[in-house]
Amino acid sequence: MTLPPLYLKRGEDARLRAGHLWVFSNEVDTKRSPVTAFAPGDACVIVDAGDRALGVGYVNPASLIAARLVARGSAHALDRSLFVHRLNVALALRERLYAEPFYRLLYGESDGVPGLTLDRFDDVIVAQATTAGIERLKPEVEAAVQKVLKPRAMIWKNDAGIRVLENLPMYADIAFGDLTAPVTVREGELRFELDVLGGQKTGWFYDQHANRDRLVHYVAGRRVLDVFSYLGAWGLRAAAGGAREVLCVDASQAALHRLDAAAAANGLAARVRSVHGDAFDVLKELRAARERFDVVVVDPPAFVKRKKDIAQGRLAYRRINMAAMQLLAPDGILVSCSCSHHLARGELLGAIQAGARELERQVQVLEVLQQGPDHPIHPAIPETDYLKGYLCRVLPA
Amino acid sequence: MTLPPLYLKRGEDARLRAGHLWVFSNEVDTKRSPVTAFAPGDACVIVDAGDRALGVGYVNPASLIAARLVARGSAHALDRSLFVHRLNVALALRERLYAEPFYRLLYGESDGVPGLTLDRFDDVIVAQATTAGIERLKPEVEAAVQKVLKPRAMIWKNDAGIRVLENLPMYADIAFGDLTAPVTVREGELRFELDVLGGQKTGWFYDQHANRDRLVHYVAGRRVLDVFSYLGAWGLRAAAGGAREVLCVDASQAALHRLDAAAAANGLAARVRSVHGDAFDVLKELRAARERFDVVVVDPPAFVKRKKDIAQGRLAYRRINMAAMQLLAPDGILVSCSCSHHLARGELLGAIQAGARELERQVQVLEVLQQGPDHPIHPAIPETDYLKGYLCRVLPA
Repeated sequence: MTLPPLYLKRGEDARLRAGHLWVFSNEVDTKRSPVTAFAPGDACVIVDAGDRALGVGYVNPASLIAARLVARGSAHALDRSLFVHRLNVALALRERLYAEPFYRLLYGESDGVPGLTLDRFDDVIVAQATTAGIERLKPEVEAAVQKVLKPRAMIWKNDAGIRVLENLPMYADIAFGDLTAPVTVREGELRFELDVLGGQKTGWFYDQHANRDRLVHYVAGRRVLDVFSYLGAWGLRAAAGGAREVLCVDASQAALHRLDAAAAANGLAARVRSVHGDAFDVLKELRAARERFDVVVVDPPAFVKRKKDIAQGRLAYRRINMAAMQLLAPDGILVSCSCSHHLARGELLGAIQAGARELERQVQVLEVLQQGPDHPIHPAIPETDYLKGYLCRVLPA
Repeated sequence: MTLPPLYLKRGEDARLRAGHLWVFSNEVDTKRSPVTAFAPGDACVIVDAGDRALGVGYVNPASLIAARLVARGSAHALDRSLFVHRLNVALALRERLYAEPFYRLLYGESDGVPGLTLDRFDDVIVAQATTAGIERLKPEVEAAVQKVLKPRAMIWKNDAGIRVLENLPMYADIAFGDLTAPVTVREGELRFELDVLGGQKTGWFYDQHANRDRLVHYVAGRRVLDVFSYLGAWGLRAAAGGAREVLCVDASQAALHRLDAAAAANGLAARVRSVHGDAFDVLKELRAARERFDVVVVDPPAFVKRKKDIAQGRLAYRRINMAAMQLLAPDGILVSCSCSHHLARGELLGAIQAGARELERQVQVLEVLQQGPDHPIHPAIPETDYLKGYLCRVLPA
């Protein structure tokens, strides 16, 4: 196998040797290997300034991340057999951790496949390609999934905003198999029916599963508010965990229809209500109506999508958390999350604390929340550690 | 009630208003209120430069932390009734969280009582005073504990190194009650007998309880090594959780005697062995003997005790984690902790990752560990967030 070399400038191999997998475009020695000579998704050997091969990866001349390292050493081809190996290593962990086949099966860089995530819903696999390299390798990925898992169906849910950075089109379609029977996810004692082609992301947020497991310890007999509920995973888990009453708020009527159906199907309809509307507006109305809750969950979509939005985002997190605290009973629990990659963990806590002081409340952080173990963090790639959350007790000052 | 005022310099109230509870000696307006006019532990009203009272606290002229705020507003006395209130608020949380009366009942600043921690072992309370203010208030604390809990016995375990900073003597004695019957702690399905007067800290490390609950998910059928085992809490929880074989290493013969006794008393002696010795030496010997483990727990005492030891400490964390990884089977689990307050969370992960790269291993962080919810973090006081840990999967590169 002879792959074209992508040469790095002197010293630019250090971050890769320390474990990272990305080559930024300004790190490429474009005199020796012009990035523009590669087509989007072309495989390459990444080579340092001293002509030592670091490993095999793929290139996208259109992206700021010019290349990603997929396999160290130069002996690997980017083929079905590599993906089969990666899938088996990833699957071994999940099978050890989960009693049932519902989890993120493969999480990009952290599982050794930059640009690819796979979510497993029993016998249905939902894949996301976020790079031109993986887009090109779709047939090999499909063949590997087929070999390792033999699923009923596999879907490409290729509509993540990040694909714009790689000049990739947005679409969702069936890679192979049959989607006529409904796709369901089981979490805790609950079943949810999903819309894997039309829903948000891959249809389900597995990253919060472990955090929802924690929530259940705090809800018995309590009144719970689930803000930005989407399908009601937090709220229904709380209801199943013994909450007295649950109110779910979301801006998507379609999500709330599914939520109501799931509440009914799981025998929880008597204790779960949904309200359609903008979260900020609904929280204001609830306050005007003097409603109080023992537990409020605030799990919003990313308020900070780009680095330049950070100041405005910080303010939005502060406002929504203040609105939540104003609805809390005197000894209440606030679960506050952020999936904004650009907002540092400490900044979320700062927003909560600033809001609490303004309201003369006192916050105790009981649990620091993060993405579950099926979304492992790559220690050299901070970008893989995106989900932040705090489970707090809120007291009068 | 008229307490003497402690005046702050202009602007030095901002941190307190943002939630912090400490006044550093250079923040005091010593012209208006010389710190040296106070005796160690004297109560005071903390007042800003504009003569607005911030709250009631206590002073220690001998400490860099000249004063600590105990109650906002000026209406509170530092008396039994205040401690009764704080204890009831703290107890309400623990009773909601734990099925059995074994937990840190009160955690200093985070529970609104700077300088005091209380650990509960059913009907025995072990207290630690770390400031002159609390040392002076011991009778009021004892009366409050008596009123709220009516325990069989209460102990002052006042031998924490940090007391030196407050010019306080080291001692351990019985505040009241009867210690003739043994003191035991229950965790998971296990019972441990404790030496609350002569053991480390308060006799038990409740801060890792929730993390040991997590470990149990990774040990079924596995061979486990518990390094710096102390009484074997990690190791015995692993054995009870189905580990095939557990080896515990500690430098304290007395701790290992108790560990062996606990293994026998809990019916786990056939699967638990202990080795006495320096951790670094024992790990070297295990490596020479080509021993391999599926799970290694590294939970050392603080390697970084003072800020100036940080470079050396970082190296020690790297060395011990490398030694642990060298004993891991190919797809192994490393649980690595640090209770060094001066070592940032990211630095521990950096040490693990640097060691892994040197050994050509690949690390996936599955769980980020921290102190349990009976050790709440005060969002404005980073010092209350001291326990860091990572549960990692270690793979060949």
